[in-house]
Amino acid sequence: MIDINKISDSTIRRLSKYYRTLNELIEKNVETVSSNEIANINSITSAQVRKDLSFFGTFGRRGLGYNTFLLKDNIATILGLKKTWNVGLVGFGNIGHALLQYQEFKKQGFIIKAIFDSDPAKVGQIIEGVVVNPIADSCEISKETQIEIIIIAVPPKNAQSLVDHFISCGIKAFLNFAPTSLKVPENVLVKNENMSIELEALSFFLTNKA
Amino acid sequence: MIDINKISDSTIRRLSKYYRTLNELIEKNVETVSSNEIANINSITSAQVRKDLSFFGTFGRRGLGYNTFLLKDNIATILGLKKTWNVGLVGFGNIGHALLQYQEFKKQGFIIKAIFDSDPAKVGQIIEGVVVNPIADSCEISKETQIEIIIIAVPPKNAQSLVDHFISCGIKAFLNFAPTSLKVPENVLVKNENMSIELEALSFFLTNKA
Repeated sequence: MIDINKISDSTIRRLSKYYRTLNELIEKNVETVSSNEIANINSITSAQVRKDLSFFGTFGRRGLGYNTFLLKDNIATILGLKKTWNVGLVGFGNIGHALLQYQEFKKQGFIIKAIFDSDPAKVGQIIEGVVVNPIADSCEISKETQIEIIIIAVPPKNAQSLVDHFISCGIKAFLNFAPTSLKVPENVLVKNENMSIELEALSFFLTNKA
Repeated sequence: MIDINKISDSTIRRLSKYYRTLNELIEKNVETVSSNEIANINSITSAQVRKDLSFFGTFGRRGLGYNTFLLKDNIATILGLKKTWNVGLVGFGNIGHALLQYQEFKKQGFIIKAIFDSDPAKVGQIIEGVVVNPIADSCEISKETQIEIIIIAVPPKNAQSLVDHFISCGIKAFLNFAPTSLKVPENVLVKNENMSIELEALSFFLTNKA
């Protein structure tokens, strides 16, 4: 068992990127790749690539590089991508609609099984085969559909009480699109999807480039 | 001038997070903060906080910590957040609609000045005071409205040709929501917003937690 407390968020993000790099190489029928090549594609150093992978075992062979299929398979195991994950979507506004149709989720094995919304006008709608349910039924439906991850796509003022509610239903992992900090117990994980952070990387670049 | 090639993407992401932490502390009338406190709020080490900041100068005083207002102001300067940025949005589907209404962009100074879409049914619409323009006019309008950043929110198959088009119009910074790798010259920056990467951090956590 990996000690996840020793693995930084940045390492996990980079593993996700290596996973995509390997997928692209495999699509091009590339069978082996060096840490240097993975590094170049991701604009980082090869030492970083080797360090990130070293937390999880020994994958390549010195001088021979990595087998793309094997390394992809290993990273899939590490990231938990060898199974599908049932996901619940809370809030069916603009972001909720966009997420339901976001093909990448399904491609990576994240399946939206149920939508929850407090608006009676939305409840009962079936979109892309997924039903919009009232919040009141959400605990029961989450259990029935074996939901493990909840996506929060509601206004900031409603986010914390909904997270508290789903924690009481046994959910331990949340992806939060509401631009607000959420408080959760230690055994629960929240990742915040703040779309302006990437824009700030662009403004940094535009401000500081020579 | 900072040598931006020496600054990692991870450092920039963390600066954005420190910026948010400082905003929240200032809202609570906190005047000084230690690297340790900033670290705890962001679940990282205080050495990491000090290292990230050290690239840009000396901000705190040993034993006294950082003045929250000054450090926030310094990070705002580093990230280029002391001015507003004019942004163009290409593609007005579900994600485009969600982004136009995403309050965080405006709050951080990213102002969507124009929308571009190839669908004649959408062209001419005015939403939240922003006009949907045809792609054909996008170079001219980008120059008129002094757009510096383009957000790509179109299907993957259309993304590269649109990026090429806007590069030819002089745009040097792109935020890409299309799940595809984009090729750009060295003096142009693309940041990819892949929303399933944060879900993978959750599946990693659920898979590996004790």
